[in-house]
Amino acid sequence: MTGSPSRRKSGGRAGRVAAREIPPPIAERAVGPGVTGGLYRPLSDRDQQRIHQAALDILQRIGLADPIPSCVDIVTSGGGTMNDAGRLCFPRALVEETIAKACKGFMLHGQDPAHDLDISGQRVHFGTGGAAVSIVDFSTGQYRSSTLADLYDVFRLIDSLEHIHFALRPLIARDISDSHPLEINTAYAGMSGTTKPFGLAFSQPETVEAVVAMFDIAAGGEGKFKEKPFCHTSNCFVVPPLRFAADACRCLEAQVRLGVPVVLLSAGQAGATAPAALAGAVTQAVAECLAGLVYVNLISPGHPALFGTWPLVSDLRTGAMSGGSGEQAVLMAASAQMANFYGLPSSVAAGMTDSKIPDAQSGFEKGYTTALAGHAGATMIHESAGMTASLLGVSLEGFVIDNDMLGAVLRSIRGIEVSDETLSVETMAEVVAGPNHYLGHAQTLARMEKDYVYPRLSDRSTPDQWESAGATDIRARARGKVMEVLANHYPGHIGGELDARIRRNFDIRLPQTEMKPGNRRW
Amino acid sequence: MTGSPSRRKSGGRAGRVAAREIPPPIAERAVGPGVTGGLYRPLSDRDQQRIHQAALDILQRIGLADPIPSCVDIVTSGGGTMNDAGRLCFPRALVEETIAKACKGFMLHGQDPAHDLDISGQRVHFGTGGAAVSIVDFSTGQYRSSTLADLYDVFRLIDSLEHIHFALRPLIARDISDSHPLEINTAYAGMSGTTKPFGLAFSQPETVEAVVAMFDIAAGGEGKFKEKPFCHTSNCFVVPPLRFAADACRCLEAQVRLGVPVVLLSAGQAGATAPAALAGAVTQAVAECLAGLVYVNLISPGHPALFGTWPLVSDLRTGAMSGGSGEQAVLMAASAQMANFYGLPSSVAAGMTDSKIPDAQSGFEKGYTTALAGHAGATMIHESAGMTASLLGVSLEGFVIDNDMLGAVLRSIRGIEVSDETLSVETMAEVVAGPNHYLGHAQTLARMEKDYVYPRLSDRSTPDQWESAGATDIRARARGKVMEVLANHYPGHIGGELDARIRRNFDIRLPQTEMKPGNRRW
Repeated sequence: MTGSPSRRKSGGRAGRVAAREIPPPIAERAVGPGVTGGLYRPLSDRDQQRIHQAALDILQRIGLADPIPSCVDIVTSGGGTMNDAGRLCFPRALVEETIAKACKGFMLHGQDPAHDLDISGQRVHFGTGGAAVSIVDFSTGQYRSSTLADLYDVFRLIDSLEHIHFALRPLIARDISDSHPLEINTAYAGMSGTTKPFGLAFSQPETVEAVVAMFDIAAGGEGKFKEKPFCHTSNCFVVPPLRFAADACRCLEAQVRLGVPVVLLSAGQAGATAPAALAGAVTQAVAECLAGLVYVNLISPGHPALFGTWPLVSDLRTGAMSGGSGEQAVLMAASAQMANFYGLPSSVAAGMTDSKIPDAQSGFEKGYTTALAGHAGATMIHESAGMTASLLGVSLEGFVIDNDMLGAVLRSIRGIEVSDETLSVETMAEVVAGPNHYLGHAQTLARMEKDYVYPRLSDRSTPDQWESAGATDIRARARGKVMEVLANHYPGHIGGELDARIRRNFDIRLPQTEMKPGNRRW
Repeated sequence: MTGSPSRRKSGGRAGRVAAREIPPPIAERAVGPGVTGGLYRPLSDRDQQRIHQAALDILQRIGLADPIPSCVDIVTSGGGTMNDAGRLCFPRALVEETIAKACKGFMLHGQDPAHDLDISGQRVHFGTGGAAVSIVDFSTGQYRSSTLADLYDVFRLIDSLEHIHFALRPLIARDISDSHPLEINTAYAGMSGTTKPFGLAFSQPETVEAVVAMFDIAAGGEGKFKEKPFCHTSNCFVVPPLRFAADACRCLEAQVRLGVPVVLLSAGQAGATAPAALAGAVTQAVAECLAGLVYVNLISPGHPALFGTWPLVSDLRTGAMSGGSGEQAVLMAASAQMANFYGLPSSVAAGMTDSKIPDAQSGFEKGYTTALAGHAGATMIHESAGMTASLLGVSLEGFVIDNDMLGAVLRSIRGIEVSDETLSVETMAEVVAGPNHYLGHAQTLARMEKDYVYPRLSDRSTPDQWESAGATDIRARARGKVMEVLANHYPGHIGGELDARIRRNFDIRLPQTEMKPGNRRW
């Protein structure tokens, strides 16, 4: 470890204060993307084996309904069969062989390589997700339909928040009604709003092709996107229980052929589209994702695909989704563990809340769901920031608040390093023979930045200090941060000439005038 | 499993609606006290072994300073030695023998046996703790000194909240300045305010004796309390680093002799009174608690004692405690795991927050800290409800909000049962051959109450419903619940004659007129 020259030269109290003001280099910071999880194991080895065997049984015996003709061709060419009920069945051997050969890890690129993510092992990354149809209006505090301008702002906000590692589009631009221009403009907003890896979803394969063509322009020419894909896609190829979704399957084939990393998403709702018994909800999702994995790997062996088991929870009194429940927390953690059982990169959802605003309910639901998914070793945790109302809405303050939370959760996942030095026996012997406290001890000063995460907005003052400073809650403090970022942070990594070329070729609806400081209310 | 007759006879939609309104018997509810944790293991087997060996080394080689004469007598009679620096050292064999013989589990009684808790294994219980000096005033929202009336109200509130299993006194009645009457009245407030197991802390052995005499009166005669002790005590017998606290040790000896279950509490602050390296903070606390365990077991072999490793976190920029940090979350989880390594019942602290009020920060800090401590298998989790401001304050709304959170966390700890029935393969086969959804399926109806926890206050409505209902946050909804409980819930289990006898023998300052409905603002 090397400090900056000014840190090494400084001494005494003034030197320590100065040292505190210089954050250490990124590599020496307490947390970053990809801390290793997996120490929370809700399922025993035997439980995992039983879920696996049940999933194989389901795929072989029950199969999936409604495969599109190309899917039937692809899967039957690999050994699958159509049964008498018109369902596509997957023999055990085919599934097990696919698991063995499937992609176990890949680099998820950002447009800025500093944001590249190593999606492998049980390395944990937090990011956004969702397809919210509304936003808590920043001025009125009321729910309203979300727009393209909101989407661009949200991408910029995420771009500025260090503990949100990737940005699947969290909301739908409802001011664009047709899916093709909507998805083109969503892609443009993501590409121009953040240099972190981002994600999209598609309705038609033609749109996938158009968007990849746009990315190729931004990346410097045809085929360039495929070399370092900076965008992944979430694909709901299955409509639980156990039925293929035709349009999504057509998109999936296009995505795989065009080299887009894909989340194979199974999002059944326990008690509605998945069994109410939690083990059954996991099992059905595992079976569905294994079917998707076979499909993808028969098209392109080793294609980067995430095991996206997202068994969601219903409140069985009303049928409404409850993404913030304790049942949801353990379901997602168990789902991540099943992906780890297979050694596959995973996507789960955590950080959902049933609350409509960033209040204490939102906080605790996000706190335990993100912590348990992360400690279970999920590689990509979608939905982990900004979402409200069981994914129906987003809150700008929410992204900023959740960033602080994710920093702390990442710190807890990093865990406790045990070594002769950290066990501190000699340090204790020194301290009890001397000052009887560790304040100012060399170990304390050395560990201060390397081992501890300091939040941006979370309050650690005394009650007196807090009251003197206006007795604010974190939501009020987050508003200031939102305004500061949105007024000033415009990534601007896509130059004027490139942008003009994209605008000549595509129906881009975000005005250039809104993409620099001094415009709109920010 | 048996349902009530009306549930078994009913059928159709009306029957199902009626069934939903009858909660199932407690034994069939989704969660209760004592769900088994331990599936989150932040420390590897080797890490635990190294911490253990380092703690033994510290006890044998460095020892503890300032033992009182009786402590020296007791420990040296068991093989301990005083070293040249005047520190009491514990040979490895003595410590290991103590661990082997120490109490591995006991019944923590409530005055109502329905609230008895089996403190053993990795059975998780959530309760309160702390010694807050202030309260967020329910009317003004401002911090003010806490009083005896507040304390009684808080005990009553906890008594009504199902997921808070025990009640260590969360606040100090600052309207009583001397410690003896303060602690007598604290004991009286707990004994009369709740029938759940409760907890106290003491300054002098004489007060311990007086309080046990008072409990004997309530329990029906001399020696009755010791038969089924309904009160435990938190004892800070050590001032970290590695120094005995004289008064606390005198109290400890009295508590052990009088049969009071005791939390052996080591609460060093990392970077101040404990090493900044997290492994060192755990190791020092383990060493200190092992010293306490030897001391207790030499006085009374097998006495019910909890391994209370509470390594706290400082914000190293300011020295202020940060109970809501990610570092804190993993420190407490690792501490619980060390107690489990020894097979000892444990106490850790989780649910602390640095926020001053129940906002989103408070929510997420409480969410991840309680979840990780619980999943690590702590047997008693103190501080898990109501606390604010890094334990400096309490919030009445906070207790009610945290109760919802703890219900969800308990549900996540209960985990996922895997069996032929829950794997649901046959249910899936039925569903895909029939309605293609699980709504109304027999499995769904059967699992609805047994497997799912329904919150009291957490909002699961749609944005439209929420706005129509007044767009409240959970804190506003909690206020209504606080007022309802405090206006009506007076346990009243200590009869008038007994109470009069207690009042004749002790200086009880809580007026009887305030202990029934219709008084004060409630």
